[in-house]
Amino acid sequence: MARRTGRRPGNPATREAILQASRAAFAERGYDAASIRQIATGAGVDPALVHHYFGTKEQLFLAAVQAPIDPRELIPQVLAGGVDGVGARLVRTFVRVWDSPRGGTAAALLRSAVTNEWTARMLREFVITQILRRAIRELGLEGPDAMLRAGLVASQLLGLATTRYVLKLEPLVSATADQLAAAIGPTVQRYLTGDIGQDG
Amino acid sequence: MARRTGRRPGNPATREAILQASRAAFAERGYDAASIRQIATGAGVDPALVHHYFGTKEQLFLAAVQAPIDPRELIPQVLAGGVDGVGARLVRTFVRVWDSPRGGTAAALLRSAVTNEWTARMLREFVITQILRRAIRELGLEGPDAMLRAGLVASQLLGLATTRYVLKLEPLVSATADQLAAAIGPTVQRYLTGDIGQDG
Repeated sequence: MARRTGRRPGNPATREAILQASRAAFAERGYDAASIRQIATGAGVDPALVHHYFGTKEQLFLAAVQAPIDPRELIPQVLAGGVDGVGARLVRTFVRVWDSPRGGTAAALLRSAVTNEWTARMLREFVITQILRRAIRELGLEGPDAMLRAGLVASQLLGLATTRYVLKLEPLVSATADQLAAAIGPTVQRYLTGDIGQDG
Repeated sequence: MARRTGRRPGNPATREAILQASRAAFAERGYDAASIRQIATGAGVDPALVHHYFGTKEQLFLAAVQAPIDPRELIPQVLAGGVDGVGARLVRTFVRVWDSPRGGTAAALLRSAVTNEWTARMLREFVITQILRRAIRELGLEGPDAMLRAGLVASQLLGLATTRYVLKLEPLVSATADQLAAAIGPTVQRYLTGDIGQDG
């Protein structure tokens, strides 16, 4: 396991229990109101152990956020097969994650991000640096408009998340992953690889 | 004396002052925290007069929400010219409204909608019944998948609002209305009139 923070990885089961408790706390209370003390209680450990394994609440939050949508796990699935059809695969993977139990954490993160500048910054950084830049780079789509393409993809996918999972707008809620991939996949495909109407 | 609401229309200048103060309060505090008392203070009137003109906080909110994006004003602009190019015109009008001072109220409404089920219901109903259904009907695009088309348009436009105005994701923030219309217009056009990959 990679140790990016210099913190002890700790006992895997305890670490996982703390992450689970933190996801529940962040989902239920939002970042600001969730406390290390409550999370420690939820995990059945001492607060000092949470700090020992994860550091600050911010570091714990990043660990909790990264886990439900781990780009190192998902991006290879999306990129398998190369550029052709990547839009539909990205939509399908996105819907699968949000439809899973992990989607609750993602929805809480999105809710928190639109009301809290700090969380917005984290989500922005996470979406752009961990997901979209990586996907663009690994697909060999780098170019002067790469970040605009990434932003357009984010606008459509976060819009799907907002309407389907947060506002619960029908018939998007009842639509299947196949229907959504068929309808929205070509949009994402064009944003990544097609004509987006920009000069230069 | 009674109009549609049964409330007195009141002095136009006072009514407008109350609406302006309510928009500022809803934008700054969100629906839940804004109070008639604060709004009355902001408008320089007695709280009883706010109730007299607008009724409950909910009725005042609806009046405040409807004004900044009045579909009766905007839809004719978007539909001028018919189906051809309607996607780009819809994106351009959407961006113009959100870029205007009225966009602050719209952003506050979106923020409130993702964290408050009641506001989400209002926004959902407003977007679907007042904007998208009307546009679909007036463009003669009714069909079995009309509401899915409307939902897809909402997913892209609310996603643009979320990323450009709430999360402030670059380079979407710096993009011009022309750039956004060129990039996103074809998406909206396809969702409204093109192949969205659904059987039947």
